[in-house]
Amino acid sequence: MTAETFKTDVTVSFGHCDPAEIVFYPNFFRWFDAAFHSFLESRGCGQKRLKHDLGTVGTGLIDVGATFRSPVTFGETLTLSLTIVEWTSRTVKITYEGHVGTRLAFTGHEVRGLFMAEEGGRLRAAPIEPFRQMLERGRG
Amino acid sequence: MTAETFKTDVTVSFGHCDPAEIVFYPNFFRWFDAAFHSFLESRGCGQKRLKHDLGTVGTGLIDVGATFRSPVTFGETLTLSLTIVEWTSRTVKITYEGHVGTRLAFTGHEVRGLFMAEEGGRLRAAPIEPFRQMLERGRG
Amino acid sequence: MTAETFKTDVTVSFGHCDPAEIVFYPNFFRWFDAAFHSFLESRGCGQKRLKHDLGTVGTGLIDVGATFRSPVTFGETLTLSLTIVEWTSRTVKITYEGHVGTRLAFTGHEVRGLFMAEEGGRLRAAPIEPFRQMLERGRG
Amino acid sequence: MTAETFKTDVTVSFGHCDPAEIVFYPNFFRWFDAAFHSFLESRGCGQKRLKHDLGTVGTGLIDVGATFRSPVTFGETLTLSLTIVEWTSRTVKITYEGHVGTRLAFTGHEVRGLFMAEEGGRLRAAPIEPFRQMLERGRG
Repeated sequence: MTAETFKTDVTVSFGHCDPAEIVFYPNFFRWFDAAFHSFLESRGCGQKRLKHDLGTVGTGLIDVGATFRSPVTFGETLTLSLTIVEWTSRTVKITYEGHVGTRLAFTGHEVRGLFMAEEGGRLRAAPIEPFRQMLERGRG
Repeated sequence: MTAETFKTDVTVSFGHCDPAEIVFYPNFFRWFDAAFHSFLESRGCGQKRLKHDLGTVGTGLIDVGATFRSPVTFGETLTLSLTIVEWTSRTVKITYEGHVGTRLAFTGHEVRGLFMAEEGGRLRAAPIEPFRQMLERGRG
Repeated sequence: MTAETFKTDVTVSFGHCDPAEIVFYPNFFRWFDAAFHSFLESRGCGQKRLKHDLGTVGTGLIDVGATFRSPVTFGETLTLSLTIVEWTSRTVKITYEGHVGTRLAFTGHEVRGLFMAEEGGRLRAAPIEPFRQMLERGRG
Repeated sequence: MTAETFKTDVTVSFGHCDPAEIVFYPNFFRWFDAAFHSFLESRGCGQKRLKHDLGTVGTGLIDVGATFRSPVTFGETLTLSLTIVEWTSRTVKITYEGHVGTRLAFTGHEVRGLFMAEEGGRLRAAPIEPFRQMLERGRG
């Protein structure tokens, strides 16, 4: 799989904003997460299939961050771009960029693992190769 | 002001969690933000006073990140600790730690600026010294 | 204006759902509110114009409710339909229906007023006729 | 069990509010839900025990509503009161009141059922009597 980019648009609404009239920042991470899940669905690798085929409870977060370049307000359309940039044995790194038109609003990243439930309900990050292969094969 | 730590507890509820039965991660940032505002209130520097005295529309985010060490689930009490660790001319850096009992759940940080509205509604980060002085004087 | 219906689609994501694997219900109201604001935008009556032309701080909620008929889960597309059904001197009533394909997921309503800030920051519901006229004229 | 009332306080934060500087209304329902779960925990009937003892996936919503009497803004402490008011064979009705000091902010209600997963993942509302008995016995 080349480092192709998945894009999705968010219509920024009044209720996404705080009294400073800009997006309440945790909402950006809601959109990171939703974009990642839409990307999985677009490859035929939605969470239900991951659970069924790989036994995972989720593609959980290990590390996340964002740098904000310009504020986003209601009435704007935010284009969120997601790129898979790095795999290790147990993690995948995803980068995000948010634009309003040509204006860069933020850059960010997530590092995710494939979480499995162990005896006693504890979660651990499992080897991620089966997930990588599933994504690369996609629906095909 | 020494690097004192402000603590607040969050009762983690069913609705804070996703189908993996762990906290949906953007909620951690909701709690970062709420803790920061509670800290401001505890110093008599709530957003309404900042707006009135300093003319700011908010203490906006410039950079944010978190590393997750262990998952948090509903029924648990999360103790969130906040420490002011660094001031520059236009930013303040805050670090966060989340514990469930003695278990470390995550570490994180925010870099915030003092946002002012310019002509035309554009926001800019103003010199932060007046905010620092206000915080250090506190209610006293 | 006839009682025409405005429709919008929501891609239901993993993070919208709780450990019961169905939508955490407050999210439905986030979508009610976002649909209402998208409807306003579609008529050229977004919140910024309302504030500028009518001096309102928002189209605030007076009453809201919903009845859930069938659960909605991640991976589904929810079609949300909004209809303006009744005006009084100070309120507008909006009904909502949510479908997943042909399956009815919920019905709901909002009663909203046009909130103005009075001296001292108190809010009051103003006569709503100017808003009605603005909506009926739309962009035209 | 008499119709006793369970109370919980919410510190209303900047990020709970929208550009009208009042609480973004879906947050009230987040707090309804969290209060209900805190009430269950206070009786020793948290969701994990319900799942284990009764096999339920959750105490899902059937109907919900609220009437807003006065706006709530950041810096205020909202006292949320919950009362179990009515049981039918498959539902329980809960009423809510929100006060800021002595000022009534809203009244509301939820009707909940005890949701069980059927074959194929479909949910149904099961007889609620075992849940009622568990609640009435509480921790005792």
